Parts: sequence; C-alpha cells; structure tokens
Amino acid sequence: MASASVEYARSQQQRFLNELKDLLRIPSVSTLEQHKVDVQRAAEFVANDLRRIGMENVQIIPTQGHPLVYADWLHAKNKPTVLMYAHYDVQPAEPLEEWLSPPFEPTERNQNLYARGAVDDKGQLWMEIKALESLLKAGDGTLPINVKILIEGEEEVGGESIAAYVRKEKSKLKADFALVCDTELFAPDLPTLCVGLRGLVYTEIEAIGARTDLHSGMYGGAAPNPLFALVEILSKLKDAKGKVLIPGFYSKVKAPSKDELKAWKKLPFNEEHYRKTEVGSTVLTGEPGYSVLYRTWARPTLEVHGMPGGFTAPGAKTVIPARASAKVSMRLVPNQDPDDILKRYEAFVKRNTPKGIQIKIKTWSKGPACVVGTNNRFIKAATEAMHDIFKKDTVFIRSGGSIPIVTDFQDILKIPSVMMGFGLPDDNLHAPNEKFHIPNFYRGIESICLFFEKLA
Amino acid sequence: MASASVEYARSQQQRFLNELKDLLRIPSVSTLEQHKVDVQRAAEFVANDLRRIGMENVQIIPTQGHPLVYADWLHAKNKPTVLMYAHYDVQPAEPLEEWLSPPFEPTERNQNLYARGAVDDKGQLWMEIKALESLLKAGDGTLPINVKILIEGEEEVGGESIAAYVRKEKSKLKADFALVCDTELFAPDLPTLCVGLRGLVYTEIEAIGARTDLHSGMYGGAAPNPLFALVEILSKLKDAKGKVLIPGFYSKVKAPSKDELKAWKKLPFNEEHYRKTEVGSTVLTGEPGYSVLYRTWARPTLEVHGMPGGFTAPGAKTVIPARASAKVSMRLVPNQDPDDILKRYEAFVKRNTPKGIQIKIKTWSKGPACVVGTNNRFIKAATEAMHDIFKKDTVFIRSGGSIPIVTDFQDILKIPSVMMGFGLPDDNLHAPNEKFHIPNFYRGIESICLFFEKLA
Repeated sequence: MASASVEYARSQQQRFLNELKDLLRIPSVSTLEQHKVDVQRAAEFVANDLRRIGMENVQIIPTQGHPLVYADWLHAKNKPTVLMYAHYDVQPAEPLEEWLSPPFEPTERNQNLYARGAVDDKGQLWMEIKALESLLKAGDGTLPINVKILIEGEEEVGGESIAAYVRKEKSKLKADFALVCDTELFAPDLPTLCVGLRGLVYTEIEAIGARTDLHSGMYGGAAPNPLFALVEILSKLKDAKGKVLIPGFYSKVKAPSKDELKAWKKLPFNEEHYRKTEVGSTVLTGEPGYSVLYRTWARPTLEVHGMPGGFTAPGAKTVIPARASAKVSMRLVPNQDPDDILKRYEAFVKRNTPKGIQIKIKTWSKGPACVVGTNNRFIKAATEAMHDIFKKDTVFIRSGGSIPIVTDFQDILKIPSVMMGFGLPDDNLHAPNEKFHIPNFYRGIESICLFFEKLA
Repeated sequence: MASASVEYARSQQQRFLNELKDLLRIPSVSTLEQHKVDVQRAAEFVANDLRRIGMENVQIIPTQGHPLVYADWLHAKNKPTVLMYAHYDVQPAEPLEEWLSPPFEPTERNQNLYARGAVDDKGQLWMEIKALESLLKAGDGTLPINVKILIEGEEEVGGESIAAYVRKEKSKLKADFALVCDTELFAPDLPTLCVGLRGLVYTEIEAIGARTDLHSGMYGGAAPNPLFALVEILSKLKDAKGKVLIPGFYSKVKAPSKDELKAWKKLPFNEEHYRKTEVGSTVLTGEPGYSVLYRTWARPTLEVHGMPGGFTAPGAKTVIPARASAKVSMRLVPNQDPDDILKRYEAFVKRNTPKGIQIKIKTWSKGPACVVGTNNRFIKAATEAMHDIFKKDTVFIRSGGSIPIVTDFQDILKIPSVMMGFGLPDDNLHAPNEKFHIPNFYRGIESICLFFEKLA
C-alpha cells in the first residue's frame, strides 16, 4: 500500500496540473529584458504557494538580477536536512512559428503538456513543491525530514545571483544533501539518477570592421567584412570531425572510469533510433572513436548558436555590415577549468582575427563540469524510492547539459547533489514544442515523497 | 548665359526638392513583401508627375513583380532618341537604430538631404523628370530630342521584370542611346561619367541539420550544426587575402586596358583618406598586388551579407539550430559569365558541405559586368554638358556596383548607355543615413538639360 503522502498526491493530480499550467502561462524568460516583470511574477507565484502549503520563512530575495525564492521547515529533530533546488525561469521561445500551440498557453496532447518551461524546469519545480504539499498534508503539517528550498530565476542566463548567494549564505543553506530536479530519465519508464554534468563557457565575439554598413558593390575588395572575419575565426576553432583546435583545450580532460563506461554500454541505447527519432538528421557527427553517450556526456564540445549582424530578413541586400557577432559556447568535462579554457579561447580568437577587424569577447556564462559520487545514503534512498514508484532498477547516467549550481553545492556547501529528474529525451527542452509527459510529473511527486520518507 | 531650361530649373529648385521629399516619404522597399503597396504608390507618384509635366503615353505597366512606369515624347523630327532609365524602389532601411533621422522622413542637414533612396535612386530619378519638365517649359511643350523614359521598381531585387520587358518590347524601346542616372561623381565637384560596372550573382545557401532545434548540452557532440557547417563552407570559398578559391573563378577575367589603368592613376584618389573617411576601418583589405580602384572596379569579389538562423537576440541560448542560411554574393568583371560562375559556385559549395547537412541554394539575382565605349557622340555631348555646368574636365571611371539593365540595353537593344550619376562616395547608399548632396541634385537637372540640348 502506498504511503499517505503518495495517496494524497494521487488524489490531487488534476489540481496540481492546473496549478502548473498557471505557472507556465507566465513568460518568465530570464534572458530578455522585456520579460523582467514576468520573471518577478513567476517568483511571486512560487512564493505564494510555498506559503499556502505551510512552508515557513518564505522570502523573495532581491538580487542584482532576478529574485531568488527561499522557504524552509526545520522541525524534524535528528533527521537529515535537504536543500531543494529548481528554477522558475525559462529559455526564449523563438522560433515562434515552429510551435504547434503557443509556448505560453499550456496545451495537453497525448498525455503530454506542451509549453515553454514544461519540463525545464517549471514542471519539475512544481513536482518539488507538490511533494512538499503532499508530505505536509500526510504529516498534519510536519515533514519527515528538514527542508530548505531555494529556487532561482536566472538558470538560463548564467545563475550568477544564486552563485553569489550560496557563497554569502553558507550557514543559512547548511544541509546534508541537495535535491536538484532539472534532469531527465534515460528512457521512458526507466528510473534514472544523473551523476554527472558538463560545464559551460558561453561567449559572444563581436567583430567590427568599417565605421558604417557599406555597399558590397562599391567597397567589395577594399573594406573588411566582420561577418566573413567571424567565419574565418570560427572555422579555425574546430575541425570537420568535431575536434576543437584551441591549443591545450583537451590537456586536463579526465576520462570516465572503466566501470562507468561499462555501465553506459548496458544502457538501453540504440544509436540508429536516437539518430532518427531524437536528432532527426542523416548522420550523427562528432569526434571519431567515441560512442554517442561518451561524446555527449564526457567529451568537451564547441558550438556556434547564432551570428547576428548584416542583412537577415528575407530577400537580398548587398551590404558589407559594419559589425557582426557570433554566439559561441563550449561544453566542459571534469578537470577542465572554465577560466583556463576561456583564457585559451580568447587568446586563440585574438590570434586568428583577420587584419582590419577589431574584436570584443563577452562571456555570458561560465561554470565547470561536475561528477557526484554514488556511494552515499542519499543517492541510495533516492535509488530505492524511484525503484518503488517505477518498479524497475534505477540507472546512473550523466548529462551533457550544465547545472552550475550543482558544482557550487559541492564546492561551497560541501554537500552532494541528488539529481532526480523526470524529463524525457524527446521533451524538446530549449526548442519549440517543449513538453512534459504528464505521468512523469505525477511519478516525480511520488518519488520525492518516498525518497524523503525513506531518509527519515 | 545659361539656356532657358537651366534658368527655369534654377527658379524652381525649392519646389523640385519638396516634390522629391514627398517621393522619399513613400517606403518603396522592393525586397520586402509588406511594402508591396508602397512600391505601387511610388510608381503612381512618378506616373502622375510625368503626366503633369506634359509627357505622353504615360503608362503604369503591371509585371509579375513591381510595376514599370513608361512615358515618351517623340515629336523632335530628325533628332536622336534617348531611352532614360532610373528606379523608384529602395533598399531596406535596417538597421533602423543607426539612422540619425528616420529613413522615410527626409531631413536636411548641411546641404544634404537624408533619407533611404535619397541618392539611390529616387533623387536621381527626380533629376531626370525635373530636367524633362524644365526642357518642356523652356520649349513651350516641346523637347529638343525624342525621349522615352522607363522606370522600374525592382532594381534592388534583381530587376527581372524590366529585363523581360526589354526583351519583349524591343521596337517600342528602340532608341539611339540610354541615359542611366544611378552612379556617382568620383569626387565632389568633379564631373564624372561611369563607363563600367561589375556584375552580380547573389545567392542564399540554406543548410539543414536535425529535424528541430536541439539543446547544445544534450546534443553537442552528436548533432550536426548547420550554422557551423556554413562557417566551414564559407571559410573555403575565400582565403584570408581575399582570393576566391572556387576553381576556374578567375579563368575568364578580362583586365582593363593599359590606357584605362593609366587614367585611373591620375584620378584624385588618396588611399589613406578613403580608408579613413569612407571606409573608416583600421586597414583596407583585398587581393595583394592590385590598387584599391582596380580591386573594387575590375576584380571579382565574394562577400557574405548575413547569416540568419539560430539565436540572434541579445543574451545566451544554448541551441543547435535545425537550419541556418548564408546570404553570399559575388561581384563579376568583364567576360565572367554569371551562369558559369553560379555553376562553379554551386558545385564547390556542394562538394564542401559537411556530412549530416543538406543544402539548398537559391539565386536572388544574377547579371554580368558591363563596359561601355567612350568613343561615341552621346558620351561626348554628356562630357561637354557636365563640363559646362561644373567648369571642370569630365573624368571616366568604373563602378564596383551592378546595373544589370545597362548590359541588357547593350545586348538586347544594341545601344550604349551614358551613365551620368551625381551621388558622392560618402552618400551611404544601401547603408544607414543615406543622403544626397542637394547642390548635386540641382547640377544633375541642369547637366541633363544641357546634354539633350547639345545633342539636338
């Protein structure tokens, strides 16, 4: 028989889902200045519900960027303390024309909830809060363990404010472990804990040539073209096989252990299925000699995300733009130091800048990779809780994405993170038609309830 | 003493300028679908004035694209016939934020008129019509020579409709020479005739990778990146010194004559001044071993104008775009065949497309280079007329830009073109803050009056 908290969660599924839809209707896009008010509204929405369900010391904490939300409940004597984490901000929804239903009007189709932020991370944030609600209900206003919850609104834009707050408030945030719900299941119905993340350095190179835009007929052959200069620079950063050409880029890379590599080979992964259904390309790319999981989880990569500048509307304009930029990021793996990589990258870009072009490099975000140990009671309790809900053995994976806060929890607060996530590989996070599989929303709530009860 | 037509033109300067401002207020951007109605309005504006001043057979001719405007006056027996040409469409005004005054609100500053299209080509179109008005006034409703005038609304988008019309209406358009006002003076106060133009092939390469936009954390290292693929392709098209690397690209190039090269050396051209005041860059670029005038007038070049796709708003988004494109054009010189160049270009791009990427190449426009002889009575009369107005010897130059219609006049109608233009090198055509120096507007009207009177 299920525990009282799980019973309660099951009885409230429709209401929990409706609340999540309300949260998803707030376009809390943290990277875009025009949505600043929406980000604030999302913080208030979250804080109000924490207050309503019976959490204590609920605070909206202003920062230099978007606010943090904090709450706690600390009356479980001699029980462990968890620091729960999630984020209420979302990625921009562009390109809008590719969404089948509007990104900020949550829409159900085939047991999925479609909306920007459905899985990343509002749906998983709401799992956390609804698990707390269910536990508080089942416990007559008490929780089985001590809980601190800290929710940020800048995850998609670098997370600087929470990083500063964690450094400043070490004793306030003191806990035995962290629970981070921002990852995914390796396959549908397969209970999964994520134990490794790649780091990220995200930059923008601005190239400047002539004083003003020039006519390519009149000046082609004499004026420097900053967009072409960026093409030249970027083409030197990476070879055709995906190897990054910045000197020393790979020198500190730490490979996964033999045991970990062996476990990855046992995962239910079909490269051809992945190519067809997830990526949808004619071939997969990347460094030869490494498997897809190795390449995306444990090898560093470099990508260009957009090149603003010049004429980009439909049609033809014969312009040599005065300036252009390139948004370039690198994913990092264990033992690569973001500052060291950034320094090497900047030096390489400068060295390869064509004459006549001035460049400026901006760093949008920066964080190291992180691998957490599996040999502790928190991971063990989480493993069991997910097993009980899914009725299958829990697997350990890594993720190619980045959650810099996990590194901060480890380095600053000295606590391990349990990364228990319920997304699916085809949930389109950061892309049009982002979704959350609704049964996974419910299983997430139940897994968290059981996890905390097992620790008590 | 000036001729009656010139006297009349001088007495009407303010009104002529005000009429031009009205024309400039119409945002007739031919490349943008949303301005289709404005392009039509501009055609009507022009046709109405041709009717008002006493031209005959005024027609707005519908085409598959934007309309042509035609008018004539053919009662000057035994006198030559001119086919006058100009265009009433303009380039897009973007980037709007760089304009000091709004692009479609003509504004006077320092004897200049600032607006999109001020010099390219509405100001010069209006010179032609106001010269006709002045000649008709001075001649009591008669003109000194026979005049046909054909004005298009697609010059900035390839000029396909006028090209088809010229092919279809050879006898209607029969003339002894053409007058094309769409070029510039080599220096302020220096009367100039343009006798050579580069050709143009303008393409857009679309690259397609995965089915949908993907998260660069999750998929970086496995998914093809079409934007990076374009970077790889473009970087192979041209070397760091500006040499185009497409095999056979230069094989047909015809060099200018020794006499022409010698005359160019005598032009008042200061490379350092040009670099500082016109281009405004730290150095000039382009093929070593050729002068700036040679490189921009008589050497073929390749430029990238914009790379739409991915995330281009301010901030950071970790996306691997599903598709991206690159707008790439080539300027051609005499004896390069646009079809041959396009074929070599397409083959080269396809050969250098990375695996996992599908490409589609669209051609936005295509036209050969053109050089006209200087040894005919039309060029000679034009030379004298400009000399009389400017009180200086007229020089012959080429332009790096493209006016495909000049080639059509030569190849289809078998007539030479007199390219008499009054722009200045710093008029910012195709760029923000486009302007026309108002005294040149007036000198243009007067030069055309005298030119036609000398031919009579």
